[in-house]
Amino acid sequence: MTPGRLVGVGLGPGDPDLLTVKAVRALEAAPVVSYFAKAGRRGNARTIADRWIPAGAEELPLHYPVTVEIPFDHPDYAAALSRFYAEAADRLAGHLDAGRDVALLCEGDPLFYGSFMHLYVRLRDRFPCAIVPGVTGMSGCWTAAGEPMTWGDDVLTVVPGTLAAEPLLARLAAADAAVVMKLGRNLPKVRAALAAAGLLERALYVERGTMAAEAVMRLADKPDDVAPYFSVVLVPGRGRRP
Amino acid sequence: MTPGRLVGVGLGPGDPDLLTVKAVRALEAAPVVSYFAKAGRRGNARTIADRWIPAGAEELPLHYPVTVEIPFDHPDYAAALSRFYAEAADRLAGHLDAGRDVALLCEGDPLFYGSFMHLYVRLRDRFPCAIVPGVTGMSGCWTAAGEPMTWGDDVLTVVPGTLAAEPLLARLAAADAAVVMKLGRNLPKVRAALAAAGLLERALYVERGTMAAEAVMRLADKPDDVAPYFSVVLVPGRGRRP
Repeated sequence: MTPGRLVGVGLGPGDPDLLTVKAVRALEAAPVVSYFAKAGRRGNARTIADRWIPAGAEELPLHYPVTVEIPFDHPDYAAALSRFYAEAADRLAGHLDAGRDVALLCEGDPLFYGSFMHLYVRLRDRFPCAIVPGVTGMSGCWTAAGEPMTWGDDVLTVVPGTLAAEPLLARLAAADAAVVMKLGRNLPKVRAALAAAGLLERALYVERGTMAAEAVMRLADKPDDVAPYFSVVLVPGRGRRP
Repeated sequence: MTPGRLVGVGLGPGDPDLLTVKAVRALEAAPVVSYFAKAGRRGNARTIADRWIPAGAEELPLHYPVTVEIPFDHPDYAAALSRFYAEAADRLAGHLDAGRDVALLCEGDPLFYGSFMHLYVRLRDRFPCAIVPGVTGMSGCWTAAGEPMTWGDDVLTVVPGTLAAEPLLARLAAADAAVVMKLGRNLPKVRAALAAAGLLERALYVERGTMAAEAVMRLADKPDDVAPYFSVVLVPGRGRRP
């Protein structure tokens, strides 16, 4: 039997019309649609893709065993996720072995900080794979802000807010243009690092860029430190502008 | 009269099916379609969008006065481009004043190193504007390579190859994951910087990612220093992988 193909489908930043034509076709053709979600939730990926998933598709949700209950740098976190990814890869392999293509939904772009990558590296030597790139979440956020991010020779630095305070400050202090992802509970630390780097006045906070509940403001004007998963801080570059 | 709207339409990395659904709709609805090109050429943007531009659209090509004839850091280069952008903005304003929407084609993402931005900042205070984000050229390239770029806490550094040798080396030496754009004649300098940073063995060279003439190879295996505009060097990250 010809094995099925694993297709990582980039969904873009949130607006369902920001799927690519190729992504829409991949979903329409998929007999099995799989996606990550928190237990008991439908998940953002499934919600974004909703209008494009055909009625007859078999759905295979993959429920994270932990999200924020254990700190991400604790050994138990890595062990729990490692088991989860291995089991999820086995479930996908069952369909692929039976000759069924599986479309695995990916928020943003599949190869850019994506959970997809953890299954892809476990399966790519055993099955044919394809990847449909997507608009990244950060592109969706700077589009929502309407701010050009990089000009001329600007270097762009993309920093996870999960970094410790000291390396975070070092990275931001050296940046021409910067994006800080994975804010969540890290926002106070990120705000302090931006202030220490002299960038607080230039920083923009964007929440749910391109989605219905989109919000854009200067970070200095944000009155609290509550930041959902879908939020970033942007420091637009100021490079060469003829 | 209600003025027209300037719409920056991200076209993605090159495959015409990597336009988003929203970008396709924007093109289908546009009475005027404008795009940058080298004089005497149709240009990459117009070629990528070809199948999506309706037969009745008025086309407004904007021909760069210089591309590589004058070094980009020469005052004459900035002066020539500044005049060009001002005149191009005037031409678009003529249509917008007459109430006609103008779709301005942008390779990749409009707000990420895009020529669009130069007209946008000249027109955004006078006319309504909208932006449709796109898959970046670098996403198209790492998809072509099939390589996950950023894991866990990896910091991504995006560096223009136009930087001088010393700052280029400093940026690459500090990078977890890196993308070097704008290669062209800078490839020998980029290769030397990667070698000095100990990254040459990890570096991938990708040309025309997602296009028909796509090529992917280890940079160490690339036998020459010829690099077209649509090429990048990728250094995939090696961060946390449970």
